[in-house]
Amino acid sequence: MTFVKEKLRVAIVGLGHRGTGMMQMILGMPDVEVVGISDLIEHRLERGKRIVKEKTGKDVQATADYQELLKTGDLDAVFVFTSWQMHTRVACDAMRAGVYVATEVGGASSLEECWNLVRASEETGMPCMMLENVNYGQHALALINMVRQGLFGELIHCAAGYQHDLRDEIGLGREIEHYRFDHFRLRNAELYPTHGLGPMAKILDINRGNRFLTLTSTATKACGMESYYANSRKATNSWVVETLERDYKGVWPEKQENYDMIGQRFAQGDVVTTVIKCAGGQTITLYHDCTLARPRLSNNRVQGTKGIWSDDAKSIYFDGISPDPHKWEEAAPYFEKYNHPLWLEHQKDLDQGGHGGIDFIVVRAFVDAVKRQVQTPIDVYDTASWMAVTALSEQSIAMGGHPVAFPDFTSGLWVNREPVVPGKYALDYVHTEYFE
Amino acid sequence: MTFVKEKLRVAIVGLGHRGTGMMQMILGMPDVEVVGISDLIEHRLERGKRIVKEKTGKDVQATADYQELLKTGDLDAVFVFTSWQMHTRVACDAMRAGVYVATEVGGASSLEECWNLVRASEETGMPCMMLENVNYGQHALALINMVRQGLFGELIHCAAGYQHDLRDEIGLGREIEHYRFDHFRLRNAELYPTHGLGPMAKILDINRGNRFLTLTSTATKACGMESYYANSRKATNSWVVETLERDYKGVWPEKQENYDMIGQRFAQGDVVTTVIKCAGGQTITLYHDCTLARPRLSNNRVQGTKGIWSDDAKSIYFDGISPDPHKWEEAAPYFEKYNHPLWLEHQKDLDQGGHGGIDFIVVRAFVDAVKRQVQTPIDVYDTASWMAVTALSEQSIAMGGHPVAFPDFTSGLWVNREPVVPGKYALDYVHTEYFE
Repeated sequence: MTFVKEKLRVAIVGLGHRGTGMMQMILGMPDVEVVGISDLIEHRLERGKRIVKEKTGKDVQATADYQELLKTGDLDAVFVFTSWQMHTRVACDAMRAGVYVATEVGGASSLEECWNLVRASEETGMPCMMLENVNYGQHALALINMVRQGLFGELIHCAAGYQHDLRDEIGLGREIEHYRFDHFRLRNAELYPTHGLGPMAKILDINRGNRFLTLTSTATKACGMESYYANSRKATNSWVVETLERDYKGVWPEKQENYDMIGQRFAQGDVVTTVIKCAGGQTITLYHDCTLARPRLSNNRVQGTKGIWSDDAKSIYFDGISPDPHKWEEAAPYFEKYNHPLWLEHQKDLDQGGHGGIDFIVVRAFVDAVKRQVQTPIDVYDTASWMAVTALSEQSIAMGGHPVAFPDFTSGLWVNREPVVPGKYALDYVHTEYFE
Repeated sequence: MTFVKEKLRVAIVGLGHRGTGMMQMILGMPDVEVVGISDLIEHRLERGKRIVKEKTGKDVQATADYQELLKTGDLDAVFVFTSWQMHTRVACDAMRAGVYVATEVGGASSLEECWNLVRASEETGMPCMMLENVNYGQHALALINMVRQGLFGELIHCAAGYQHDLRDEIGLGREIEHYRFDHFRLRNAELYPTHGLGPMAKILDINRGNRFLTLTSTATKACGMESYYANSRKATNSWVVETLERDYKGVWPEKQENYDMIGQRFAQGDVVTTVIKCAGGQTITLYHDCTLARPRLSNNRVQGTKGIWSDDAKSIYFDGISPDPHKWEEAAPYFEKYNHPLWLEHQKDLDQGGHGGIDFIVVRAFVDAVKRQVQTPIDVYDTASWMAVTALSEQSIAMGGHPVAFPDFTSGLWVNREPVVPGKYALDYVHTEYFE
């Protein structure tokens, strides 16, 4: 295939820590020109203008009102890095303005906003891709490879989680305009499902011959934040400390003096366990766990009739392949052996993107689709159904763990949509035949 | 405290593989005399008589009707090692005959049979202890120690599981009169909850200031057994092979010739995920996973506001104790450091009991209670509420993951029942003040 567009004109909406970092990476891509930026907070917008000027020598259109960027009429794509609750609003407006949308990860607050994405995409023909970087990690890609080659047999169960200590980031978020704080204060849900769920959804062919049917969610009490801030107001997370020192020098230390979280209450349960049932009879268990004293652990697991991988145990087993029956093997050699062609191709680029290079690969997957003017590898049905987990889990928790039904965002198309074909497409990367 | 009875007269009901093994261990205890045995299957009963004769030189009362043993009027205790669905029936009859009951682990089929246990115990004053050996393992005991000493802070979440490959044992069970087979064929539930749940229930003070409130259960499809027996009819599990060779020599090999599981259907989902919510705001996640190609992994996890232990990752972390924030430590040294006095005391005995010695310790805990004529450390409320998980999960799965409520088997007594006191009692081991 050849490119329809050799160079893209894109806008960036949302220039907090994440948006700014992603913009810097995108500015380094020779086939992408950042022609517009938007943020509601003035000092962020100013910083954005300065960065674009430094990197390109050009002045960029900068506005607090992202609609102005859409009105220019010559954009190819919009990147959405706003707060969670703005993702779908900006995305729908962008699709209706006739441009491709890449949206940062996050969960939905209502099913209606998921439907809005689907409607906007179906009516305009514009794709909407969630930039789920973990789908482009070495593990996620190699697992696709192993699953398609039949090592696991028939898939039965997957598990994943978002489990690490964000007490500093959430708490200090109040001071540094980070959106997480209010979500943890007011909501109780699987707030951040997609890093864990995205890869498992692709492995399970969700929206392509399979779909999410129902989920149940159960939350613990909320004690982690209160007990932490009763004892400590000093960040220990090195990422947070670095961010504060770099971006809030002269601002945050003074604020810290007045910083008082004592008595602040949170609605978000410390550990939320969600179990999804799929039309194909598989289940997926998800953990959300960010407000307790805990090092990172993924809870990732892929299990079929013939084999199982446990990321926590760093172990793997395949009936008839592993030398000893009933005995684990080390997983790492399998991930090397079944490395995905897409991962191998991009190894030279990994230092260009955050989170170990996966930010770079996921953006390239999107850019590639826009340049070819084809469907994105993570499409609007994926984006809508992954985001819906947050809204549904919020309902289930509120109703004491009652099962709630996923809408079929494809309205029946999942039944006949082609699954990812072994040996043909990589990770639904439909326009790049890595296996051919 | 002194013993009310120096030597106990006990009966054993159920002499399959488990019952026979446990009886052999009990026969080695000088303060316990086996005076009666019962099993419905004649060759098992004959084997039992032979074993008692060999070990003691005496003839034992042996009958297919366990009621005859209860009628003798001079028993101190009955051990119940029957099939799952007979546990509560034998236990209730025994309590009503005025004897202590120790019952092998297993789940309930109805809430009514759990209530029957509670009624029989409350009306007769006779204790009923589930012999949950895992509660007496090194990890379970050391965790009690760490939790009571405050290392985890306020408890938030626990997880556990019964996850290993029993495809041989379940399938061949049809030939060797093993009860599991029919349960997997006909039921769909968290069939075997207590090895995982028992230790977590004690850690969370269930029925002593806390209780199980609700659960949801979700099952996958059932593919593991069918796909296994479509490809293989030869056992690979060494325990099963040894059992067959030892106990079914001359029987099983011939049977194997006719052995045809092809086409046999199973109702039991391969992976069942259960989430329990507690009155204290904690959650417990349980896995039941025995019919897929998988090595053993516990899924055990204990998590509080200040720390977390993951058995799968063999790692532990405590805020303010672990040297590096956000970094796991190896768990093993903590289990050595916080070894429970009860474990240390029994280290010399560990070779006397199966499953690494825990069978011995749990039986000694029961025997000790009978000799002192006091309440057992795992009481009828524990037994009833742990067994209830199976019946409740079966209902929840049948209703698509609907939450179901635990009965309060204490009828309100849990509110004021004394929790396990730090530094005083070991594992609710109320009559032996290990920490004094």
